[in-house]
Amino acid sequence: MQLKAQASRPGIKVTYRVRAEPGTIEDRARAIAVEQSVEMPVAAISDPAILDGIVGRVEAIAAVTEGLYDVRVDLALATTGLEAGQLFNMLFGNTSIHDDVVLQDLDPGPELTAAFGGPRHGIAGVRARVGAKGRAMTCSALKPQGLAASDLADLAHRLALGRLDAIKDDHGLADQSYSPFAARIAAVSAAVTRAADRTGKPTRYVPSLGGSLDDLRRQVDVCRAHGVDFVMLAPMVIGLPSFAAIAREAPDMAVMTHPALAGAGRIAPPLHFGRLFRMLGADAVVYPNHGGRFGYTADTCRAIAREGLADWYGMARTLPVPAGGMTLDRVPEMLDFYGADVMLLIGGGLLAAGERLTEETAAFVDAVEGYAPQAMAGAGQQASTVA
Amino acid sequence: MQLKAQASRPGIKVTYRVRAEPGTIEDRARAIAVEQSVEMPVAAISDPAILDGIVGRVEAIAAVTEGLYDVRVDLALATTGLEAGQLFNMLFGNTSIHDDVVLQDLDPGPELTAAFGGPRHGIAGVRARVGAKGRAMTCSALKPQGLAASDLADLAHRLALGRLDAIKDDHGLADQSYSPFAARIAAVSAAVTRAADRTGKPTRYVPSLGGSLDDLRRQVDVCRAHGVDFVMLAPMVIGLPSFAAIAREAPDMAVMTHPALAGAGRIAPPLHFGRLFRMLGADAVVYPNHGGRFGYTADTCRAIAREGLADWYGMARTLPVPAGGMTLDRVPEMLDFYGADVMLLIGGGLLAAGERLTEETAAFVDAVEGYAPQAMAGAGQQASTVA
Repeated sequence: MQLKAQASRPGIKVTYRVRAEPGTIEDRARAIAVEQSVEMPVAAISDPAILDGIVGRVEAIAAVTEGLYDVRVDLALATTGLEAGQLFNMLFGNTSIHDDVVLQDLDPGPELTAAFGGPRHGIAGVRARVGAKGRAMTCSALKPQGLAASDLADLAHRLALGRLDAIKDDHGLADQSYSPFAARIAAVSAAVTRAADRTGKPTRYVPSLGGSLDDLRRQVDVCRAHGVDFVMLAPMVIGLPSFAAIAREAPDMAVMTHPALAGAGRIAPPLHFGRLFRMLGADAVVYPNHGGRFGYTADTCRAIAREGLADWYGMARTLPVPAGGMTLDRVPEMLDFYGADVMLLIGGGLLAAGERLTEETAAFVDAVEGYAPQAMAGAGQQASTVA
Repeated sequence: MQLKAQASRPGIKVTYRVRAEPGTIEDRARAIAVEQSVEMPVAAISDPAILDGIVGRVEAIAAVTEGLYDVRVDLALATTGLEAGQLFNMLFGNTSIHDDVVLQDLDPGPELTAAFGGPRHGIAGVRARVGAKGRAMTCSALKPQGLAASDLADLAHRLALGRLDAIKDDHGLADQSYSPFAARIAAVSAAVTRAADRTGKPTRYVPSLGGSLDDLRRQVDVCRAHGVDFVMLAPMVIGLPSFAAIAREAPDMAVMTHPALAGAGRIAPPLHFGRLFRMLGADAVVYPNHGGRFGYTADTCRAIAREGLADWYGMARTLPVPAGGMTLDRVPEMLDFYGADVMLLIGGGLLAAGERLTEETAAFVDAVEGYAPQAMAGAGQQASTVA
């Protein structure tokens, strides 16, 4: 079995965090490098072009703590085919089924980042859409699902009168019988525009898209027809190839990601949301803030924000959108923590205000816009590292 | 905010396996039911149509062991929109980010199973394709990636001369520069057909498809043009909506799933592969067998097989394809364990034979076809339960 000699090998540097007994980590590291490349006994491969050009290489093993190691592997770039699903397949396909490993970090190199392109708009594009210069931004969510389109529109109108920067759909809103997608976009976008005309504030409606690539394309067309230029996608729900496709073929849309179905910690959240989603085109990333309904630590949240904001292969910066059980009284603390390059998202915490929804929303907006930035050393100002 | 009264509520019954302190499980269970439905404080919802028709309901809590509970929740069917991605979003979207919960079991009910339809061919269809009546089936894999199409074809030819039932692509084979998809399908399918003409055995080539829905459709067309009628998809890599779309719109293709990117145990494997993939249309499911390179227990593997084979809403049965570091000497033990409704997959274990590849393959085939079924009480013969 002969193969032409491969050209020199551009690689992607992948770090796996592995639990192992001290005497076993070298073997385990080699097994991961093989699993994520040729997936067969290396001894049965004789072709030097594959041994040199394709087989994963263990480049470094570093102890993190007792029995926990960071294993850096070089994977051949060519195995990804520069396609989003195949990239994740090569990074973590079979190894995701081993419960001793977390996909921890990645240096994709310039070819891969150029192939995907990163955020088309980034923080600057989101700021331009909502008219927010140099300050933190505000967002709320339309819920609960089960409301008809007209009721969601009424809710959006009352939120928009409070002068939010953005109002996103709950990620549970899809194309359901009680509120079909097209009817919802028409009703809500009109309601938000009506409120914006009254307040003078260009509040953006951010619909949640879902379904197959056909569905997503139809939904983008519906959004466009109603002047919507900012949409939300859950990449692990719609599939990574569809996410990359929409980011690529709808460059007029700013894209916010939702973390649904991401799986607790199997892919380190700073890598998953701050790097991988960014590389595939996320202009803004929703993730669970510490101290809310989810278990992320403050360090994890800081690292997610930092990765999205760091200088990285010339890609636009991704806006952090911490969420998940946030409340109005936490605004100053969150702004101390994140600085100005952030969009705060409070959903249920505003909706609990009932008849006082617009007033409570305005209080949220005032708290963010009136925040005195004594602590400008937010997450984005610090050195980049996936911790 | 008014809503029309909802019609009576068809539900899906979902079981979450939750780690919790004994005194806290009732609250945790209610929190999951809310997270996976309205995702906001229930106290802020006044509309009885949403409270009755949409909010998730905790129906039962059962202790599994000390500090571990099975929580059964009824989710409103309407929230799924009968779409594959949204179904997973409602089952596990946000809750996947909590590390105290595994998605354990599901009773989707007749509407959801009818909407997706399950396997179009099932075990009977796979048996018809490969000409195997009442016996276990054999499969191997084309690897390593990095080989050119002509080398993969040479390898496939030698495997097919050993009279395998099926030869699948390694799940790492995609549309890469060193072996573009169309060239690979043309070369390998011709090589397998040439071998089949010589052996008289209708060995099937099972290509691995990947990429966006556009890519998948083009690839199905290429397969069809070369007489291929059995393909492999990794649903978590290509995305659940794309998987459901291909199962639906390519009913001439039998579909084998690969477990890449499934994540260790976040969704219980018997549910994930034996039920969810089956419901979305898997005719055959590849999964890691116990005692190989992956950590699944024998009980988990038995349960995966059992779920795929059980009578379930009239859907066709799904063929179990245990794999992952299997070897020839394990054939009798695996057939004792699984019985006749199984396809054994040995990849690297055959390729290690080098020049003796065809002979080793024939020995594998003879071992399976010549197996004396003293232990017909295989996994499929036992009562169904997700354990």
